[in-house]
Amino acid sequence: MQTDIQIARAAAKRPIADIAARLGLTPDQILPYGHDKAKITHDALAGLDGPQGRLILVTAINPTPAGEGKTTTTVGLGDALNRIGRRATICIREASLGPNFGMKGGAAGGGRAQIVPMEEMNLHFTGDFHAITSAHNLLAAMIDNHIHWGNALEIDTRRITWRRVMDMNDRALRDTVVGLGGPANGFSRQTGFDITVASEVMAILCLARDLADLQDRLGRIIVAETRDRRPVTARDLQADGAMTVLLKDALQPNLVQTLENNPALVHGGPFANIAHGCNSLIATHAALRLSDYVVTEAGFGADLGAEKFLNIKCRLGGLTPSAVVLVATIRALKMNGGVAKADLGTEDPAAVAAGCANLGRHIENLRAFGLPVVVAVNHFAGDTDAEIAALRDYCAGKGVQAILARHWAQGGEGAEDLARAVVDLAEAGGQFAPLYPDDMPLWDKIQTICTRIYRAGAVEAGPGIRDQLAAWDKAGHGRMPVCIAKTQYSFSTDPALRGAPEGHVIPVREVRLNAGAGFVVAICGQIMTMPGLPRHPAAETIRLDDEGRVEGLF
Amino acid sequence: MQTDIQIARAAAKRPIADIAARLGLTPDQILPYGHDKAKITHDALAGLDGPQGRLILVTAINPTPAGEGKTTTTVGLGDALNRIGRRATICIREASLGPNFGMKGGAAGGGRAQIVPMEEMNLHFTGDFHAITSAHNLLAAMIDNHIHWGNALEIDTRRITWRRVMDMNDRALRDTVVGLGGPANGFSRQTGFDITVASEVMAILCLARDLADLQDRLGRIIVAETRDRRPVTARDLQADGAMTVLLKDALQPNLVQTLENNPALVHGGPFANIAHGCNSLIATHAALRLSDYVVTEAGFGADLGAEKFLNIKCRLGGLTPSAVVLVATIRALKMNGGVAKADLGTEDPAAVAAGCANLGRHIENLRAFGLPVVVAVNHFAGDTDAEIAALRDYCAGKGVQAILARHWAQGGEGAEDLARAVVDLAEAGGQFAPLYPDDMPLWDKIQTICTRIYRAGAVEAGPGIRDQLAAWDKAGHGRMPVCIAKTQYSFSTDPALRGAPEGHVIPVREVRLNAGAGFVVAICGQIMTMPGLPRHPAAETIRLDDEGRVEGLF
Repeated sequence: MQTDIQIARAAAKRPIADIAARLGLTPDQILPYGHDKAKITHDALAGLDGPQGRLILVTAINPTPAGEGKTTTTVGLGDALNRIGRRATICIREASLGPNFGMKGGAAGGGRAQIVPMEEMNLHFTGDFHAITSAHNLLAAMIDNHIHWGNALEIDTRRITWRRVMDMNDRALRDTVVGLGGPANGFSRQTGFDITVASEVMAILCLARDLADLQDRLGRIIVAETRDRRPVTARDLQADGAMTVLLKDALQPNLVQTLENNPALVHGGPFANIAHGCNSLIATHAALRLSDYVVTEAGFGADLGAEKFLNIKCRLGGLTPSAVVLVATIRALKMNGGVAKADLGTEDPAAVAAGCANLGRHIENLRAFGLPVVVAVNHFAGDTDAEIAALRDYCAGKGVQAILARHWAQGGEGAEDLARAVVDLAEAGGQFAPLYPDDMPLWDKIQTICTRIYRAGAVEAGPGIRDQLAAWDKAGHGRMPVCIAKTQYSFSTDPALRGAPEGHVIPVREVRLNAGAGFVVAICGQIMTMPGLPRHPAAETIRLDDEGRVEGLF
Repeated sequence: MQTDIQIARAAAKRPIADIAARLGLTPDQILPYGHDKAKITHDALAGLDGPQGRLILVTAINPTPAGEGKTTTTVGLGDALNRIGRRATICIREASLGPNFGMKGGAAGGGRAQIVPMEEMNLHFTGDFHAITSAHNLLAAMIDNHIHWGNALEIDTRRITWRRVMDMNDRALRDTVVGLGGPANGFSRQTGFDITVASEVMAILCLARDLADLQDRLGRIIVAETRDRRPVTARDLQADGAMTVLLKDALQPNLVQTLENNPALVHGGPFANIAHGCNSLIATHAALRLSDYVVTEAGFGADLGAEKFLNIKCRLGGLTPSAVVLVATIRALKMNGGVAKADLGTEDPAAVAAGCANLGRHIENLRAFGLPVVVAVNHFAGDTDAEIAALRDYCAGKGVQAILARHWAQGGEGAEDLARAVVDLAEAGGQFAPLYPDDMPLWDKIQTICTRIYRAGAVEAGPGIRDQLAAWDKAGHGRMPVCIAKTQYSFSTDPALRGAPEGHVIPVREVRLNAGAGFVVAICGQIMTMPGLPRHPAAETIRLDDEGRVEGLF
């Protein structure tokens, strides 16, 4: 059997200008990066005024070590929609460079449902993340420089919240002291580095509508407080213009293709815990103007990913999704039903049925947004008829179709049934509405998500948190949505609690105001913003083979 | 009068594939980056086997605040050679991103002698420096990770010399403590960041012949010592393969064009003090196979730049230059002759004659390498006939032509006289030989450069330095050339000492073994490897204008 990378390398890629032409874009409306990648220019984006296509969200049950195949299904569905005569574009996130040198790098999909060129997408791609790193760190340098030259803004050096970033798994940088070595090096203070995808600049790039909006949002970033607790922004430091210049190319969406030569926009990649975990709004907007259907996905399971997609990205971007595909695998349902990973090879329809509690909870939650839902069963060779029947019976009881999808083995052809079901649902349409109104106070928004999506019995706020939220309400930030940072493995804050727990307590440990991105982050549990490398990092075996191809990255 | 940026924006650029075609490269032998930049592929490089063109080095007198116009002359000469019927390619360095946000960014040339696209070349360009940053910092992360997981190599954490890098002017990062915050974050230790162009990875990229040589050199980098003082290399940490993967695209030379649509390879940019300050060897090699003439330059004045070009780059790369162009301006000669910057507008042929001592010293030095020399007088509107005559008289006395070059105002047409003189010299040919043989002991090499090029009366070694050099000789590193890090403003180590001082003392404060790059660095004076931002950084005024063009960067 061929591996993902073997399949990807054997792909019959078309010149990227041909893929652009499929979208109606002329060669001067794209900027090529090599022969198989391109950016859509700002000029081309500004000129898009056609009718809008339908937006389909692919999300999943809570992730397990068994794997669900959300991206694979996103790609397979996109290919299948094209096969059944709908012009469909796929919108997914870019990969972060750093983690690829820790564990094995991520593919964009798998099997016969992949986006290529895989190697470039796992390395520097078109340089977007490097641009974000530069813009973020320029702001950091300007903070310390401002203080060094007299601190006219009276920044309280104990209350600088803006850290530096690097697209690298480097635990030694989590907690640092900078500015040692005497007066020529500035004032010493304790700070640290996050990984680039955790940067607020990343979240901003992914929510900006255009260059002007990008600069506005960058200017609103709060980097520190003064001695009398007034916020200091990037605009106060006059950093917003230069940051925008550094990001002007990165804001242009990246065009690549599937194995079946269908267009895919791969752009942006904010964290799915402390940020909203979706590809860029600008890419989604462009795809909607260029296609009948846009298939996109959001990070983690539907409790985190879909909730943020719907309450943050759709709200801020004025998007109205037409349907949701909820991805599950028999194996993952069995794990949610209590089976250990080692025992997944044994047929167990009862465990599937038990695990469906997790699936059912997500179906209910998605319906609460007024959206039609279809379950995609990402098929594995070992799935038995009895297990599939158990899942189908459960879904029938919920009034939801469960469609077997074989895109991993067969490409788009294997997901045609799913594509037809999606088209039926989307054309019938739903009544999308976010879960809470803009004008709900911030604490009530947190409670709404925790009780209605996570089904918590109570939400506990750490010391000072409710006062802080009330102060932000009063200061005019109350209309922002909230972004909850929490484990992706459970509806609760206990990663081991699979299935469909309820009545648990969600503790809110910390809240942060991302005034530039435009949301308030509520941190519930341990969130790692700078990963480390494992004992034997993948980097030790990554190399070029004799033919100059990358080995060990996949 | 038009500014450089106005002229650059008005350029009638040709599609980069047309420029490649001028070099005989087909569209599949380049990787486009937008419509006006491209990389020449590794495959194309491997297939180059035509005859070699002639290599012309453009260097200058010691730099002064008056400006010399070395890059401008390099570009003008390249354009002029094309005008007189020689297929000429220009090879220069890439700009560093960080400093552009401190002081105003650098153009690539000036007036009618420029390389475009200027904006991209001053921002992310094709991402080479970001790739170098990533590769450098991956190695750093792997060092701390190795120690965290048990330190099997027994690295002495007090003797880790490998720092981190960032392409940013950020003085707060010069001296840091990392690994704070407890066991999960590794072991705390003091270290710091340099700017990316100071990375040994940059020097290696610029001296590597191909991907295999790149990986060999990366593997030889010494990052630390063990408790018993054995060197620990990147290969010991198994980092060399992954670093090569990160650099594989960056090693491919970047093709752009002059205002007159002639080809320019802009690739690599090592520091001219702690490194050798020349564009990449791989670009120079490629250009020599693709052109009759290759015009290149080296950092700072001829004492530092040309000396390193000839003793390091030409030696390691097997290059034989055919002639040297020594750039001077009347204004800079007047400053070397003792005139203050404010008084440069006053005619002063006597000061020109006095300043020629600096010029004459460089002429003698270049002849010591067996190379024919021509002086290019980069013409300024205020230069008077009497001043030019004073310079010409001096040069005639030295047996050297001094040619007035008006490329700044007139483009290639203004440098045709210079081009003809260069062709005459190059076709007559010289007898190039490096200044010292490979097998001279390291200390003797340092002395040779200091006494024969800088005309020092004595070289003083700080404590332990001669023992260290002898130990390296014994360990098999003695065949490397040496790279002297010293002020660029004077032949001495006193930046205020202009003209042609002699008999001074050169103190060697520190020596470093760059085993990967393949040279030993001797540090003589204060060398800054991480700049800071000024009180009012250019970043404060850099922004996009209403038409989306970059403002304030130039």
